[in-house]
Amino acid sequence: MTQSLVAGLEPPYYTAVFTSIRPDAPEGYGETAARLHELVKDMPGFLGYESARTPGGIGITVAYFRDLEGLAAWRRQPEHAEAQRRGREEWYEAYSLHIGKVERSHSFVRP
Amino acid sequence: MTQSLVAGLEPPYYTAVFTSIRPDAPEGYGETAARLHELVKDMPGFLGYESARTPGGIGITVAYFRDLEGLAAWRRQPEHAEAQRRGREEWYEAYSLHIGKVERSHSFVRP
Repeated sequence: MTQSLVAGLEPPYYTAVFTSIRPDAPEGYGETAARLHELVKDMPGFLGYESARTPGGIGITVAYFRDLEGLAAWRRQPEHAEAQRRGREEWYEAYSLHIGKVERSHSFVRP
Repeated sequence: MTQSLVAGLEPPYYTAVFTSIRPDAPEGYGETAARLHELVKDMPGFLGYESARTPGGIGITVAYFRDLEGLAAWRRQPEHAEAQRRGREEWYEAYSLHIGKVERSHSFVRP
């Protein structure tokens, strides 16, 4: 998989940092994650989405939104809300969410 | 590796989201990363540090600090500054940094 990075954008914008611990491939998780990755792209204010998981370690997902309204709408999106419920009941041993307003950003691409 | 998550803390605090693309194991990278992971724990205002990398994909590292002064001191820390230089010259094809002030956080641990 080659993935491009979300570049540093003009502040302000928001990062929703979601970190999690879960078994490697719980039932239904992969399809749901792929579906949500598609759905989020159509949300108002969506700027980008990135995800990484160290095998046997933690996962970190970052969603980038222009404003809190977009993030709140995404949180309430019905398929996403249902995935959050399954996440708590079936998939995740633990997770944390940290929503921050970006004040400073920077990008580098090797020439 | 079992890693615990940085829990949602009382806002405000800061997340520094560092995303990167690099070859799997560039020379000198592993030792430097381990060393920096130790050093950052002694910085004023340090709250936590997490890292994940999908094999063949992107890496996401999040540093949590109580204030911007602590983050700035960490950016200028001599071994970290030297690592940033090597990162640009030797290790990374691309990276982005997004520094956000956390307004809202939440944690879940399965009972």
